[in-house]
Amino acid sequence: MLENIRIVLSNTSHPGNIGAAARAMKTMELSRLYLVNPKKYPDAEATARASGADDLLAQATLCDDIDAAIAGCQLVIGASARSRRIPCPVIDPASCAQQAVAESAQGEVAILFGCERSGLSNAEIDRCQSLVQIPSNPVYGSLNLASAVQIIGYEILVAQRQTARSSVEPALPEHVPAAAEELQRYFEHLESVLVKLEFLDPDNPRKLMRRLRRLYNRARPDENEINILRGVLSATERERGK
Amino acid sequence: MLENIRIVLSNTSHPGNIGAAARAMKTMELSRLYLVNPKKYPDAEATARASGADDLLAQATLCDDIDAAIAGCQLVIGASARSRRIPCPVIDPASCAQQAVAESAQGEVAILFGCERSGLSNAEIDRCQSLVQIPSNPVYGSLNLASAVQIIGYEILVAQRQTARSSVEPALPEHVPAAAEELQRYFEHLESVLVKLEFLDPDNPRKLMRRLRRLYNRARPDENEINILRGVLSATERERGK
Repeated sequence: MLENIRIVLSNTSHPGNIGAAARAMKTMELSRLYLVNPKKYPDAEATARASGADDLLAQATLCDDIDAAIAGCQLVIGASARSRRIPCPVIDPASCAQQAVAESAQGEVAILFGCERSGLSNAEIDRCQSLVQIPSNPVYGSLNLASAVQIIGYEILVAQRQTARSSVEPALPEHVPAAAEELQRYFEHLESVLVKLEFLDPDNPRKLMRRLRRLYNRARPDENEINILRGVLSATERERGK
Repeated sequence: MLENIRIVLSNTSHPGNIGAAARAMKTMELSRLYLVNPKKYPDAEATARASGADDLLAQATLCDDIDAAIAGCQLVIGASARSRRIPCPVIDPASCAQQAVAESAQGEVAILFGCERSGLSNAEIDRCQSLVQIPSNPVYGSLNLASAVQIIGYEILVAQRQTARSSVEPALPEHVPAAAEELQRYFEHLESVLVKLEFLDPDNPRKLMRRLRRLYNRARPDENEINILRGVLSATERERGK
């Protein structure tokens, strides 16, 4: 099941942190590493710090943007060190792990880690159904990137073993959320229609799209529902064209 | 409460690991670091890797032996990567943290981490009431020392916050286990008496003392009980002297 859980490191500055994160992943039986625009990679320091987990580096998927890294994922959770103003549900590492393991039984799951200095960008958070926050010292919360991966990985392995031990099959939700790229195409379609309708002013967008994203990320539409929503948008466009 | 929990690093080879462990501790609100015979310390690499947690290094207690590092502790838990043949109770990180936090309300607690290469020595395990094992990949369990400290520290902070949130005071056990050094003095006294009695052959001790240690470490005698046990030993010695 852990094969369906990928760790996405976005815009990592220090190659040593990529290696250390790979090592942390492997100790916790995670193997699928995605790298979005790493600053220096491949790099000897990454390999050195991986120390025996260099197979994960060799198999890592390099991506140009976050959407490529989360393509096919039905659940995207972002790791966030600080509280954000944007109301996105915040969960603890144990809940994150339980959800990731449960959903990995039926589809792909991504956990995103932003760059060392500033964490996830707003555009990255826009793609998350929830944010996971690791409890830490309020006056010294500076967890190393690899340490954060280590803790999330540890909780995932704990959750996976608990699931494996329980004789009951994890209940598969009847509702299968649409993949990240389908959701993303819907948001792009929606935005273009709202601009055409002059409901959204591209020169002064305010937080409209962000609020709509939150709404749909909470609802987690499945493929059928996305088709319906996009059908509505197409119908709106045709109506305007008349 | 976390003030009563100390992290003991024994015979650490790489000073960088001491610094990284200090950083991991501080992110999890742990502050009391004890170092037993570090190979190279103080060292610039330790300070560099501590990155803002150098106050913990400055306040660290340097010890010549493990007994000095656990002096005054009523609970000693050892971190062990592999299964040991000696039957010492093995617990998971969450249980370790719950026990450490609960007992820290009334006394001092130590968590021991052995050297990077070989882990805890038998003499160190002899001083533990239980061993904590971090779940990991059976074919790649090589957690970095600081990563192990990070996970145990994380579970301790989680347990501490759960305790703080619950309005119920943690139940103080009526039984207050004796401090590590009292236990140690008892074992030394016991051993000398067993040798005098020719029950223990110093040239062929087998595992007798180890077995007796396990027994008492499980029982966790309090100060009164230690006084009684040592009284029995003194009486035995007097009897022989007659």
